[in-house]
Amino acid sequence: MKHYLQFKDLRAEEYAHVFNRARIIKTRFKNYERYQPLVDRTLAMIFEKASTRTRVSFEAGMYQMGGSVVHLTTGDSQLGRSEPIEDSARVISRMTDIVMIRTYEHTKIERFAAHSRVPVINGLTNEFHPCQILADIYTWLEHRAPVGANGFDLASLKGKIVAWVGDGNNMANTWLQAAEILGFKVHISTPSGYGVDPVVAGIRDTSCYQVFADPREACKGADLVTTDVWTSMGYEAENEARKTAFANWCVDTAMMSVAKPDALFMHCLPAHRGEEVAADVIDGPQSVVWDEAENRLHAQKALMEYLLLGRIG
Amino acid sequence: MKHYLQFKDLRAEEYAHVFNRARIIKTRFKNYERYQPLVDRTLAMIFEKASTRTRVSFEAGMYQMGGSVVHLTTGDSQLGRSEPIEDSARVISRMTDIVMIRTYEHTKIERFAAHSRVPVINGLTNEFHPCQILADIYTWLEHRAPVGANGFDLASLKGKIVAWVGDGNNMANTWLQAAEILGFKVHISTPSGYGVDPVVAGIRDTSCYQVFADPREACKGADLVTTDVWTSMGYEAENEARKTAFANWCVDTAMMSVAKPDALFMHCLPAHRGEEVAADVIDGPQSVVWDEAENRLHAQKALMEYLLLGRIG
Amino acid sequence: MKHYLQFKDLRAEEYAHVFNRARIIKTRFKNYERYQPLVDRTLAMIFEKASTRTRVSFEAGMYQMGGSVVHLTTGDSQLGRSEPIEDSARVISRMTDIVMIRTYEHTKIERFAAHSRVPVINGLTNEFHPCQILADIYTWLEHRAPVGANGFDLASLKGKIVAWVGDGNNMANTWLQAAEILGFKVHISTPSGYGVDPVVAGIRDTSCYQVFADPREACKGADLVTTDVWTSMGYEAENEARKTAFANWCVDTAMMSVAKPDALFMHCLPAHRGEEVAADVIDGPQSVVWDEAENRLHAQKALMEYLLLGRIG
Repeated sequence: MKHYLQFKDLRAEEYAHVFNRARIIKTRFKNYERYQPLVDRTLAMIFEKASTRTRVSFEAGMYQMGGSVVHLTTGDSQLGRSEPIEDSARVISRMTDIVMIRTYEHTKIERFAAHSRVPVINGLTNEFHPCQILADIYTWLEHRAPVGANGFDLASLKGKIVAWVGDGNNMANTWLQAAEILGFKVHISTPSGYGVDPVVAGIRDTSCYQVFADPREACKGADLVTTDVWTSMGYEAENEARKTAFANWCVDTAMMSVAKPDALFMHCLPAHRGEEVAADVIDGPQSVVWDEAENRLHAQKALMEYLLLGRIG
Repeated sequence: MKHYLQFKDLRAEEYAHVFNRARIIKTRFKNYERYQPLVDRTLAMIFEKASTRTRVSFEAGMYQMGGSVVHLTTGDSQLGRSEPIEDSARVISRMTDIVMIRTYEHTKIERFAAHSRVPVINGLTNEFHPCQILADIYTWLEHRAPVGANGFDLASLKGKIVAWVGDGNNMANTWLQAAEILGFKVHISTPSGYGVDPVVAGIRDTSCYQVFADPREACKGADLVTTDVWTSMGYEAENEARKTAFANWCVDTAMMSVAKPDALFMHCLPAHRGEEVAADVIDGPQSVVWDEAENRLHAQKALMEYLLLGRIG
Repeated sequence: MKHYLQFKDLRAEEYAHVFNRARIIKTRFKNYERYQPLVDRTLAMIFEKASTRTRVSFEAGMYQMGGSVVHLTTGDSQLGRSEPIEDSARVISRMTDIVMIRTYEHTKIERFAAHSRVPVINGLTNEFHPCQILADIYTWLEHRAPVGANGFDLASLKGKIVAWVGDGNNMANTWLQAAEILGFKVHISTPSGYGVDPVVAGIRDTSCYQVFADPREACKGADLVTTDVWTSMGYEAENEARKTAFANWCVDTAMMSVAKPDALFMHCLPAHRGEEVAADVIDGPQSVVWDEAENRLHAQKALMEYLLLGRIG
């Protein structure tokens, strides 16, 4: 049994499989071909932070594959409050087939997973957001990678440059893990004091990323430019300090102009136009943010299929 | 693609189709004949106001037709708070197949619909409640209209009189639109200061309704008498002032006695007996309020079928 | 039509049927054999108290049998607040096929059931928790009863002893009803002032239980030892007083040692280790608490099947 708590929980060849299944599942779904391999299977979703995209994509995805969803919020069940997390894991994993958790400390999801009989998926922790990067890289492949007999050519990502502009947060950490596994490079620029920590990010080879003080330098020659809100959920108290610190970390057309001419722009949303990204960029021709959002659905369907049913086809 | 934001979003011949499909869908359902044309399709429901009837009828209806539902409340996603409504519309309509929204200002649902790739249904706004009137007219037809080879005879409503007693609210506005489209007449009586505004109601021909100062006058000769709570959701601050103003707008047996002998009584519920309606009336033989509530289910199934699959049969 | 509001709502032979169906349904489910007799049927769940186990087990169970679930919480619909309970019952039972309610006063669920067109299940009231005892006795049978051609031998429970240690609450009341119907005996020990009242419990023959001042005496020779948290939901204000009063009512290894050597330990969870139960016991070899939690799922599937479809096979 496999969990998906960090991006590095799958190997490159597993990603090749999952991305290719996502492509097939998406195509068939768009053609109204029914594919319901998960009839009888139940996904438990535990949200300790609010969510729209993660909620809708997992829930709709599970239903579309024939399964069902039980959606638990903090009101129903706050992990570790009325009973130890370990007991919740034992009980919930006795009644359902797969669990998705959005919580704060990554250690909470690790404790849950350690006592779960069924696969556990990280739907966002303070440290990591692997499902978002799964969708992002799928979107990248969809827009830029050649498709051969075996599906996407994952090797085409090797040596490519992803520019991360802004907060050294769970998204940034996860991009670093993805770079290490898939062979691309992250050019990262954060305000002072908001950088990534390779120990927290859990990477072994720091050559997969390079730090730039100036966000424009980070974007130079990038194949993909991406950012996130200045203040992520849970850090609202720092809002004012962050607004000052991040003022120069706005992805605008000037910044995009130093990237490759065909560079893509991504954002995991919600976006604050005029803060971390200019309206011209997110609503412009290089932006693929709506495809990126939609692909949460297709990529996670492939992920759930893999965790529950293994390698198919 | 069609949205259903106001009653006037469909034409009379489309209603003839939808009401007839509702009749067929209801009959089959009562006979335990499976009808699951919406397998694979997902309904997103966004509630910014609480709901029981709208919630249960849409959710059960979608599941009964083989589809699935993602239920978002304000806690999960408050339209326009963390991101522009337009962005929410883009994202949610990429992941689901149809969206139902209950919110405050009608402009919010219009902005959502303008950026949605999929049909949007109004599950109640401050200005309109088309799904309730859809069920009400279906119930009226079910109790009073002849059924021919082509289903209900919608022309049988022409010239009939609906008495609206009470608040000039979203229900009243929607009755006016229905009268204009289907050719019946609304006799409306509201306390002073609570009247309908034909501009807000969005009707072109004001001959479809007539205003009466005395609610008894409005009920004279009516085929259908209907009312609503004195204080709708969102107006609780006005509660005391409304209790005084509406004191004479209680549908009691005296009021029903001036309507046609076979007049029906309707109420969209919840009802406050002793305020807008006497117990004798709502629990009496002319009341069809429980059929009316149940028919939300069947009418909305036909509506969703029409919006997603078009004309069937 | 049958409701399931108290344990005594079914007779012994009906329990024999339901327990045997639970065994068959569980076995097939574990073998991935699809069994979806409830396609088209909708369960409405109304929660006025929080829940994890009841929520997940009913919801997953209904979906696994092909049906669907509408989950209403207090925020959506507080029974008796915006409309009389009787009206909610009329409306909800027009739109759904079966209703589960978790609430406070048992009279609320009785009023709902009296006006419901469809079966109503008690998912916990202040007075009773029949679904939990249903799962507990199923678990007991699974671990200890011989299985013959007609399934579990329910007569094997006759004369057996269940020791209830702790609060004379809804669980204790329900154990008394089960003992009266199925012919076993409850040895009950509660702190002074927290005892059961046979009138509240609704039993006719008080010989089905015996009261012990000393919990160790209650456990002597017991086949099954079970307890619950010192402070159940809704009694949090009494927490400190209860901690003092219940100090000697902790099921520890000393207490288990006077029970039969093969006695089982049960707890409906969540558990507070070091309060009502020692970690050595709940995490020890006699504890079947995780099976007990899982069996909520299987036992309730059999219950819903029986209430909706009657005797099968």
